[in-house]
Amino acid sequence: SVNPDLASERQTASFSVEKLTALLDGGAEQTRIRRAVVEAIESDSVFSRENQYFQTQNERYEAAVRKAVHLQKKMHEMGWTENGPEFKYIYRALSGDVAFLLHRVFMRSISVLGSDKQIAKWIPLATQHKLIGSYAQTELGHGTYLQGLETTAVFDTATQEFILNTPKISAMKWWPGDMGRSATHTVVFAQLYVHGKCYGIHPFIVQIRSLQDHSLCPGITAGDIGPKMNFEHIDNGYLLLKNVRIPRENMLSKFCEVRPDGTYVRQGSQKINYFTMTTVRISLISDEVLTPLMKACTIAIRYSVVRRQSKLKPGEQEAKILDYQTQQEKLLPQLAAAYAFHFINDYLQELFNRGYREIQKKNFDMLPELHALSSGFKAVITQHCTAGVEICLRACGGHGYSLLSGLPSLYTKILASCIYEGENTILLLQTARFLIKCFMAASAGQPVPPSVTYLVAVKPGKCPAKNKLDFLSPDIYTEAYQHVAVRLTSSTAAKLQDLIQSGVKKHDAWNQCTVQLVQAAKAHCHYIAVKNFAETVEKLETKAGIQKIMKHLCDLFALHGIFSNTGAFLHDGYTSAAQMDMVTASYLDLLAVIRKDAVPLVDAFDFTDKSLNSALGSYDGQVYQRLYEWAQKSPTNQMSPAYERYLKPLLHNTLSKL
Amino acid sequence: SVNPDLASERQTASFSVEKLTALLDGGAEQTRIRRAVVEAIESDSVFSRENQYFQTQNERYEAAVRKAVHLQKKMHEMGWTENGPEFKYIYRALSGDVAFLLHRVFMRSISVLGSDKQIAKWIPLATQHKLIGSYAQTELGHGTYLQGLETTAVFDTATQEFILNTPKISAMKWWPGDMGRSATHTVVFAQLYVHGKCYGIHPFIVQIRSLQDHSLCPGITAGDIGPKMNFEHIDNGYLLLKNVRIPRENMLSKFCEVRPDGTYVRQGSQKINYFTMTTVRISLISDEVLTPLMKACTIAIRYSVVRRQSKLKPGEQEAKILDYQTQQEKLLPQLAAAYAFHFINDYLQELFNRGYREIQKKNFDMLPELHALSSGFKAVITQHCTAGVEICLRACGGHGYSLLSGLPSLYTKILASCIYEGENTILLLQTARFLIKCFMAASAGQPVPPSVTYLVAVKPGKCPAKNKLDFLSPDIYTEAYQHVAVRLTSSTAAKLQDLIQSGVKKHDAWNQCTVQLVQAAKAHCHYIAVKNFAETVEKLETKAGIQKIMKHLCDLFALHGIFSNTGAFLHDGYTSAAQMDMVTASYLDLLAVIRKDAVPLVDAFDFTDKSLNSALGSYDGQVYQRLYEWAQKSPTNQMSPAYERYLKPLLHNTLSKL
Repeated sequence: SVNPDLASERQTASFSVEKLTALLDGGAEQTRIRRAVVEAIESDSVFSRENQYFQTQNERYEAAVRKAVHLQKKMHEMGWTENGPEFKYIYRALSGDVAFLLHRVFMRSISVLGSDKQIAKWIPLATQHKLIGSYAQTELGHGTYLQGLETTAVFDTATQEFILNTPKISAMKWWPGDMGRSATHTVVFAQLYVHGKCYGIHPFIVQIRSLQDHSLCPGITAGDIGPKMNFEHIDNGYLLLKNVRIPRENMLSKFCEVRPDGTYVRQGSQKINYFTMTTVRISLISDEVLTPLMKACTIAIRYSVVRRQSKLKPGEQEAKILDYQTQQEKLLPQLAAAYAFHFINDYLQELFNRGYREIQKKNFDMLPELHALSSGFKAVITQHCTAGVEICLRACGGHGYSLLSGLPSLYTKILASCIYEGENTILLLQTARFLIKCFMAASAGQPVPPSVTYLVAVKPGKCPAKNKLDFLSPDIYTEAYQHVAVRLTSSTAAKLQDLIQSGVKKHDAWNQCTVQLVQAAKAHCHYIAVKNFAETVEKLETKAGIQKIMKHLCDLFALHGIFSNTGAFLHDGYTSAAQMDMVTASYLDLLAVIRKDAVPLVDAFDFTDKSLNSALGSYDGQVYQRLYEWAQKSPTNQMSPAYERYLKPLLHNTLSKL
Repeated sequence: SVNPDLASERQTASFSVEKLTALLDGGAEQTRIRRAVVEAIESDSVFSRENQYFQTQNERYEAAVRKAVHLQKKMHEMGWTENGPEFKYIYRALSGDVAFLLHRVFMRSISVLGSDKQIAKWIPLATQHKLIGSYAQTELGHGTYLQGLETTAVFDTATQEFILNTPKISAMKWWPGDMGRSATHTVVFAQLYVHGKCYGIHPFIVQIRSLQDHSLCPGITAGDIGPKMNFEHIDNGYLLLKNVRIPRENMLSKFCEVRPDGTYVRQGSQKINYFTMTTVRISLISDEVLTPLMKACTIAIRYSVVRRQSKLKPGEQEAKILDYQTQQEKLLPQLAAAYAFHFINDYLQELFNRGYREIQKKNFDMLPELHALSSGFKAVITQHCTAGVEICLRACGGHGYSLLSGLPSLYTKILASCIYEGENTILLLQTARFLIKCFMAASAGQPVPPSVTYLVAVKPGKCPAKNKLDFLSPDIYTEAYQHVAVRLTSSTAAKLQDLIQSGVKKHDAWNQCTVQLVQAAKAHCHYIAVKNFAETVEKLETKAGIQKIMKHLCDLFALHGIFSNTGAFLHDGYTSAAQMDMVTASYLDLLAVIRKDAVPLVDAFDFTDKSLNSALGSYDGQVYQRLYEWAQKSPTNQMSPAYERYLKPLLHNTLSKL
């Protein structure tokens, strides 16, 4: 039975939850396919996450391997294929709790970087799991800066082999997933040396464990890097190489080859590589970042209408905590952001698909823009969503802090997304570099990519809003965001030039501007996100109920951004203090409006109870009952040796005889 | 041997690290005592935290009990007493990783709330550990709002007993530490009923487990609430009471008593109770909040001078990441905040001691101010330090995400401080209520406590700064903070009055202002923190080297606050945009200055390697070696059954025959 405090929230929805779900899925047919996958996965006990919060790292790893192996069987049974429409829902249905994800990266890197012959040899082996692959790039001492990698691969003309070494401890490969315990092979990135000359970083296929008994191959030292904040299910590993010899054919050679005599040959364009990083950054947004935020919102908002605490009005019963303005101000902007980023993800996917088509026609013009947008949005969205999940956790008070709420594990996992696939600050500086370059070019009258033409097209002026309702006009707030992005980019460009003109060396000048460059990159992404949300809402005209609530969310997303960062808008007087008070008023009004639809808005994300795996967030809102039932299953409710060993002697007072 | 990249940082210290340590400790003699305690604890293998990151919740609990029991013996051996000078260092030396903390709360509550007779009976039993106590206040459905607690204690005149019940699932006691597995007794807070009349919440001593065999007493259901984000060492518990009868004498009766005939008698002043909460909030700041931030700063800053990544200048070796402006901007403000809050903690302790002396003279006048300051600073400091630890973690990239860095456990533990002992938003609203009340009183010419007289004493005007150096003047920035605090308080008071005058009910009006009231409370605390830091620096005139670097940190703390919240200062034109650009320039300049002393500044916190328990933060900076050594000890480097069960059949290709 549904908790009446939750049931009542659903009776007053201003829109059709089912239609909004279909919109988020990209159509009712997609919803149907997704639900079928979820149903198939969740009804299979092998995939159960029921005891996850009680498991050790070793147990989590074993379960993830079991699931990965079982998944092969399941896909075969269900007729799902890697190219089928179901595939993209499988990972979500598993909540990512499965091994061999790096095996897939291993395969992708061979497909992208390998010659046809290499693809023909390795891909079938990998597909049939006759080997388990990993991807060994990051080293103990080297992450972001690939050129600094220290692992070496020296070509030995005599034996036609590469000799691989991790010459120093900082060169040890560190972090590769699936490598700590599972992998038999890996793609190692190493500095290529031929006849004493270094040709830079290249990829090599290296076998690390025996296919017969899984023992380490000669010259290999490998193992698991130990406990992490999350990812207990993944065996992130380390790898030391000592004079490991591999045949010449194992250097992936689509773009570069070492001929038998040691001649180094570069062939084809490597630009596609650059595109691969872009792909990965965009692809992680949905699965690794948006889904956790949507889950956290679902949990925290459902809990906030079931939890009653203190009194809003004297004499009445205790109030639902979502009725407090401060609670709304914590949660509803996160909900708005989840929608905003869902739509920007659609936008990036579309842009990316367009870019891909162009690249296939050998047109690489879109690459810089794609790189800048994917870098910037990867950083902005992971940062925003990580903060959002933390806010949701804290908004649930003590119960949010229990692992059983599901929120701690969402937080500890999403946090990693700020670090992997490019550290966020570095990525924002890449975006900023693009912005500065385009700003200079555009200022000089040269053409620039479409997403940045606004940098020099903006007319000076002031925000025209006259009352608080004006701030519910997308034109008004989108222009304010645009203005800020332009101001931050142009003023930082000016500072950079001033420094250089005053004699500061270029790289020092750049370093001295980086704090402000990061601000400019964020402002650029924020502007595009607001603009895209507003444009998305406009296109929903055939769906009146949904358009109305999406418009509210769009307004909230935009005004929350201004309210939380008023200085950026006030700085040059574009927005006046009086207008800022209007923003505040409109923003606070919106909270009360959206609060009414808060539960339907999270219901539309359509998470099952099993996928939320949360005692606070279930569809029926029976929070206390579930917390109690789950806690009773905890291993901490088994007898502890501490009693016989320490407590009993203490209580029976041996100690007082000391 | 010390990593040369770290050693070089220490050679150029602009001040004496040892003298700064003594200043932080409150004198060289305190430093000596602290180090002696640390030495005694760390040389005793029972207290070792060496394998902590590899342990399960059950193992952590067992170790914490073992340590707690051993600590009794150790204190006896060392001649340490609860009233001795060593006592305050013991908990820090143990990094809080010890059981029976709630046993101490149990004792304190009896001392404060019990009659002389009750104290004479229970305190010796507790002191000698003939029982283990806990403190059962929070319920599944009730935290902050004590009046809403649902547990009942009905007086039965016939048997002279109280009958205790948790009548609904939401009434179940939930969270009490030491209760899940250890406690034999607890203080239960329950609604007192006599002859059908409810007298509100009262404390009762209840035995929950047998002293002979630890079995649960009749009518008691109790256990452990399961896994949490941290606090694995503590057995936070649940407790159900079903018609549990306790003698009339077990109601703690210093302030209220039920006579044998059921007459309810209130005696003495309960104001002291109110003071107890204040005490707890202030006392947690140092151990639970500042220490973790200082540790996180130590780890992240040491790592940032050892980690080299990418190049600042073309052709040179890779740069220390602390040389990047963006890394400085992440870490150095956290360092400044650690010092700022250390000094505000001294201020609060002093204020609290003064208050305590007054209260003993039956003068309760300081209570409202103490309550407002302790609530506000508990919230502001826990929030700021939690965010600071997270920034330190993320600033260490992938290695920060490894449990072996020590940063994840610092984060997951400090996070709880935002929730326990009063949820932060609720606390800030208590401070705001005090501010509004004082503002109204002061506006009407009535006297108000010293910390809020400024609310009506401020002269209107503009910030007088003329160049960026002016913003290194404490008068300039302290006044700016003061101005903002006044503006936010007065404008919210005005909004509140407007709403009420326009017919909105008082409680609705209050709720509609809470987002802004929280801002006002934060601004008030921030102002006091800045002012106090500046005053502390001024008093350091006899210590020239230290005064200079503390002045830099004070400036950084103040300017970082302005830089991160420019809107508040720009809003009414008190600070102009041109002045804000000066703030930015001075702020960025300061980063480069303080960066030079960053390592000495964290060295002064004087954490041993054992207390940091971090592969990244050790005094010798041998990061990579330590990560590798520690990882090898992880249980994930033992053989997993996953190989025989899943990997071997997979690789030997049984699946392909499906």
